[in-house]
Amino acid sequence: MCGNCNDNSHTDAPASPTRRRALLAGAGLAAAASLAVMPGQAQAQEPSSPAGNGPWRVRAYGNQRADGPFGPLEIPRRALRPNDVLIDIMYCAICHSDIHIARQEWGPPYPATNFPCVPGHEIIGRVTAVGSEVTRFRPGDIAGAGAMIDSCGECENCVNDLEQYCVKGWTLNFNTPDKFLGGYNYGGFSQRVVVPERFTVRIPPGMNLAAAAPLMCAGITTFSPMQHWAVKVGQRVGVIGMGGLGHLAVKLAVARGAHVTVFTSTPAKVADAKKMGAREAVVWTKPDALKAYANSFDFLISTVPTSVPTHPITGMLKLDGTYVIVGAREPIEDVRGSGLWLQRRQVSASLMGGMAETQEFIDYCARRNIVADIELIKPDQIDRAFERIKTKDARYRFVVDLT
Amino acid sequence: MCGNCNDNSHTDAPASPTRRRALLAGAGLAAAASLAVMPGQAQAQEPSSPAGNGPWRVRAYGNQRADGPFGPLEIPRRALRPNDVLIDIMYCAICHSDIHIARQEWGPPYPATNFPCVPGHEIIGRVTAVGSEVTRFRPGDIAGAGAMIDSCGECENCVNDLEQYCVKGWTLNFNTPDKFLGGYNYGGFSQRVVVPERFTVRIPPGMNLAAAAPLMCAGITTFSPMQHWAVKVGQRVGVIGMGGLGHLAVKLAVARGAHVTVFTSTPAKVADAKKMGAREAVVWTKPDALKAYANSFDFLISTVPTSVPTHPITGMLKLDGTYVIVGAREPIEDVRGSGLWLQRRQVSASLMGGMAETQEFIDYCARRNIVADIELIKPDQIDRAFERIKTKDARYRFVVDLT
Repeated sequence: MCGNCNDNSHTDAPASPTRRRALLAGAGLAAAASLAVMPGQAQAQEPSSPAGNGPWRVRAYGNQRADGPFGPLEIPRRALRPNDVLIDIMYCAICHSDIHIARQEWGPPYPATNFPCVPGHEIIGRVTAVGSEVTRFRPGDIAGAGAMIDSCGECENCVNDLEQYCVKGWTLNFNTPDKFLGGYNYGGFSQRVVVPERFTVRIPPGMNLAAAAPLMCAGITTFSPMQHWAVKVGQRVGVIGMGGLGHLAVKLAVARGAHVTVFTSTPAKVADAKKMGAREAVVWTKPDALKAYANSFDFLISTVPTSVPTHPITGMLKLDGTYVIVGAREPIEDVRGSGLWLQRRQVSASLMGGMAETQEFIDYCARRNIVADIELIKPDQIDRAFERIKTKDARYRFVVDLT
Repeated sequence: MCGNCNDNSHTDAPASPTRRRALLAGAGLAAAASLAVMPGQAQAQEPSSPAGNGPWRVRAYGNQRADGPFGPLEIPRRALRPNDVLIDIMYCAICHSDIHIARQEWGPPYPATNFPCVPGHEIIGRVTAVGSEVTRFRPGDIAGAGAMIDSCGECENCVNDLEQYCVKGWTLNFNTPDKFLGGYNYGGFSQRVVVPERFTVRIPPGMNLAAAAPLMCAGITTFSPMQHWAVKVGQRVGVIGMGGLGHLAVKLAVARGAHVTVFTSTPAKVADAKKMGAREAVVWTKPDALKAYANSFDFLISTVPTSVPTHPITGMLKLDGTYVIVGAREPIEDVRGSGLWLQRRQVSASLMGGMAETQEFIDYCARRNIVADIELIKPDQIDRAFERIKTKDARYRFVVDLT
């Protein structure tokens, strides 16, 4: 059993050279899925060829323990199944959830992190091979993939293109059981990935590919609730938190013709918010600063990944306004009856979009030239980027260049 | 200053006989609004005549301190203004909020209770006089009045017939400042009341008037969210708590053709729930009992006036389901992100209806013969009824007979 997790299939002992050779030849992959090579050793290995049907071992970047540094390692990718697409990853952005998982910052209901951990779920790359039943992609196409790589496909929500709300639970692209290879899935901080066609979107020609990567999670996660609650021209929208998700929420709400107000704790972001089209940007750290906005907003979206009291925020909503939380938070603190019933306000939370909606969203952004503001980094800068995100020094998404 | 409250206009000393005579003659009413006669003394006084334009002093039933008994006293009612209706109260039902106010069980944000306290806000009676500009009532008509007796009339919500969400705040019929007489308003446990026509509804012929009284708060409070969230035929509705509000919620959801499940802590109410049309009734005291209903309901309404954890309840909602709280509760406990985002569920809370909706509701109930299950009591049984409500012995609304 691995000393870093609860998975009996893990082991503390590095794979022996003999065993690694067997793995590289494609044998015993199921049993070895999580037998990633330790940092430093990976570079001595020759990753398997991208050609053919796989399986492959590919270079990736991960950490071996919650407080450990990111470094190169090797991970397995399954042989293409008939509906699979092989993507040579070009860009993978860093979401705050990647930090939460890699640093094991979440408690229940989230599962413990399995190490080595390879996160990354805002993926853009070039399709280099497709399974026999794939119809929407050919080698050479540019594809995007997000956090969700499987769902039951049969429940009421799945058949209604709402796979993100699959009642049997969907599968994350990292740290969830890998039903094909055993062990756990590895994310996008890697050379290539195999994803079912159903969980892959086409990236239209002309997009800035690095800057489009964050659309695959941060973008669709803020777009989907705006669609669901039908944010429209002239409505007043408040965006709470202006980081990776928040700055895209601003651009997307502005694109809908809303009157956008940003609430940020970072004075240096005020000018950026206005450049992105926000009418105003409010620096706040204490709830009292929000009182001036009582009964002002039709829609509030919180992108803040840390604890924020709810009551001062709901007080800013007009009648029947919605406060939707898209940053993963547990619990939702300080919800008060009077904060809701005085104007029949509602509190909700939502996930990313379904795949049909994600494709619609990517096309929507391509038509409007909406992408993230990014800083391109090399894989050896992931740890530093994590730190800079935590100190609110990201402007506004780090994207790992894997080309 | 009264020893029981924070109102400087109150006094501990009973009014002198001379002063009371002046009050009965209609002089100095503004100053004396809260100078109610002590219990036992009222019966020795002759209430002023109901004829004419007022002002009147009328018999009422209230308590002098939070732990004090209810007894008869006298209260002032203002002279009719052009838009006012004078109602001779026939029936006034007891809502749990009456207990909360009279027993001072609520803390902030609710105001402290002013004593003497005369609650009661589910009122049915006969119109005996009308102001010069009243158009919808004539003496002899049957009218209903609820908790709300004033609002700004000018804000966006008021002009849209949503006075219950008046952004300037509406006025309760008791324990709120009386802008005409000074002091505080007194409620429906009284002989007669003056209410603006705009906050009064017409009771159609043929209704059981005593059993219709609870519709004025308990009924409209459960009907309004079902209208707003459009509960319809075939939907699964869960009613949490089967008291005064809950039993009406059952009848109203059944009337809409919903598949209704009741969640009650009282086994003796199961049979009643089924008689009222619920498909099933679940006895629960521990949250684990709710797990069997995961992802089952389109709409959940909580009528429970005490603390209930939210997370086990939201887990019962389907995708996009709403959990609406209509029992006054502060805070709303145990709201968790995962309980919401897994199925984009929402938590809300709502108040009674606007006056147009309340009239629509009364007409709706009259057409379908929907009234409350009641137990008629005399005014001297109010204390005992309070106790029986607290011990869940009400079936399902006590109505004070003031005829």
